[in-house]
Amino acid sequence: MTATENTQVLLGSRPVGEPTPENFRIERTAVPEPGDGEALVRTVYLSLDPYMRGRMSAAESYAEPTPVGGVMPGGTVGEVVESRDPALQPGDLVLGYAGWQEYAVAPARSLRKVATDLPPSTALGVLGMPGFTAYSGLTLLGQPKAGETVVVAAATGPVGSAVGQIAKILGCRAVGIAGGPEKVAHLRELGFDAALDHRADDFADQLAAATPDGIDVYFENVGGHVWDAVLPRLNLYARVPVCGLVAHYNETELPPGPDRSPALMRHVLNKSLTIRGFIQSEFVAEHYGRFLEEMGGWVREGKVAYREDVVEGLEQAPEAFIGMLRGRNFGKLLVKVS
Amino acid sequence: MTATENTQVLLGSRPVGEPTPENFRIERTAVPEPGDGEALVRTVYLSLDPYMRGRMSAAESYAEPTPVGGVMPGGTVGEVVESRDPALQPGDLVLGYAGWQEYAVAPARSLRKVATDLPPSTALGVLGMPGFTAYSGLTLLGQPKAGETVVVAAATGPVGSAVGQIAKILGCRAVGIAGGPEKVAHLRELGFDAALDHRADDFADQLAAATPDGIDVYFENVGGHVWDAVLPRLNLYARVPVCGLVAHYNETELPPGPDRSPALMRHVLNKSLTIRGFIQSEFVAEHYGRFLEEMGGWVREGKVAYREDVVEGLEQAPEAFIGMLRGRNFGKLLVKVS
Repeated sequence: MTATENTQVLLGSRPVGEPTPENFRIERTAVPEPGDGEALVRTVYLSLDPYMRGRMSAAESYAEPTPVGGVMPGGTVGEVVESRDPALQPGDLVLGYAGWQEYAVAPARSLRKVATDLPPSTALGVLGMPGFTAYSGLTLLGQPKAGETVVVAAATGPVGSAVGQIAKILGCRAVGIAGGPEKVAHLRELGFDAALDHRADDFADQLAAATPDGIDVYFENVGGHVWDAVLPRLNLYARVPVCGLVAHYNETELPPGPDRSPALMRHVLNKSLTIRGFIQSEFVAEHYGRFLEEMGGWVREGKVAYREDVVEGLEQAPEAFIGMLRGRNFGKLLVKVS
Repeated sequence: MTATENTQVLLGSRPVGEPTPENFRIERTAVPEPGDGEALVRTVYLSLDPYMRGRMSAAESYAEPTPVGGVMPGGTVGEVVESRDPALQPGDLVLGYAGWQEYAVAPARSLRKVATDLPPSTALGVLGMPGFTAYSGLTLLGQPKAGETVVVAAATGPVGSAVGQIAKILGCRAVGIAGGPEKVAHLRELGFDAALDHRADDFADQLAAATPDGIDVYFENVGGHVWDAVLPRLNLYARVPVCGLVAHYNETELPPGPDRSPALMRHVLNKSLTIRGFIQSEFVAEHYGRFLEEMGGWVREGKVAYREDVVEGLEQAPEAFIGMLRGRNFGKLLVKVS
């Protein structure tokens, strides 16, 4: 309560290719003071997510880049320390967007109290942005019908694991892809009908064997060689919601040829495919309430499990983030800040 | 009426790359005789369309390939010569799928009488498959809103010209792309807000200037360098119905690198694009009646104009078809067979 120092992780410089620890800078500043209608919040959990790689670059993306010298962005769950708004009291746990720092001031109306009957970290994972990405992308864009085959990669991550488990609830065959035997074993525990290691030499053959009726929905969050193996397996009228391409985020130039983009478009034409990019924010206004209710129910009933990978201390965030882009995390990656 | 010889154009061999006259074979056979429930029809007009290139190849496509030695497929308007079904009488003009031949027998229920107050050739163009491709792809998949910008290439062709004119009726800005000054001038006559020659050295710059508010709907029927120029102009949530890729139909191998397919997917992600392949047949059952009514009304009122490019004699069909794949036709390409 009497802390006066605020630890922040800033964007030190823009990465070229894979980020390095040198692209981040740790700074200590004064704890800010809330104005009228604002609250001071101490971060408890910081969420680390692949989209942050995009914000580190100046290249065109779906969101403004973080300025060099700015606090790294990120969703957070924190505890209200001081409030100058009647809607919040000290001790309240709130979801916000403080970024990579210990303390932040925010308008009270931008903070949302989190459910008290579930671990507060779930508001950053299965019941937060990643869970809603899975829920909205799969149900609204993927539109899976019972009996169809749904494939998702990075399937032990917070988005992929929710995609697979929701697909199962909806009566689909769920095929999960992950890197390494430990993650593959976890997919089986989660109830995926098939679990594949994308590092296997014969991965494409394994995928073909695991999708005997083809693929109706591919939830795209990685790109790369997984997409290459998926594309020829897509059925007529298959849907491909695209929420991420983590395999490509660190690329500094186009891969060598030949140019396969015309071949991709021919698949689109020959199979009447729908490829649809999205950011979950598109669907928040209309669907977030239903998501919290439905997904919250599944989590409370144990129908949707989640796994967290918690790193202790804000100073560890850069290394944990770099590792996540390499697939080193196992479950929703969080930083326990305080 | 007493003809006994039927001229047919067969697929002589599968083309490698661009088709040549040697890939076709003209044959004379006996005029077939209708059985119960069938009619003998003499072809009046044969429609030539880019999709036929796909049928000439054995490669996977959205339809079965034509066998070597088989009659080239194609939509036709013909006159009933003899009917063994009470629904049709000699002299009736019917839409069918006789292919590249003078006479064909077909089940009467597969033939549809064409409107008598419009030229019968329109049943193969603006009020037929190409018109419905434009209408269904633009309205159902493109979903243009008034004030949005719609771009289409091959815009003097039967699909593109309908796309542009429907877009205008719906209150959109319509930008048409064609090859050569004569076609570009025709686009202006059709009411396109901007008309561009894709052969211009500065085509991409011209497209940028013609789409000051970006592109909301790109109706894709060509691919190639037009698509390259369109992609960076697409707005957030832009829609790209894909009904053809005529620039790529004759390619025998992938173009040289770099591989731009990951860049294409990044555009999809960053702009929340929808890319949707389709064949008009997907929408026939639900929407064809409405199309005939609405589009027929526009044609009769003169709100939608159409242009035909008519070649005389079935023997000319191979050369006309080869020319069409090079963009030589000017308007809906038809063969006047008899």
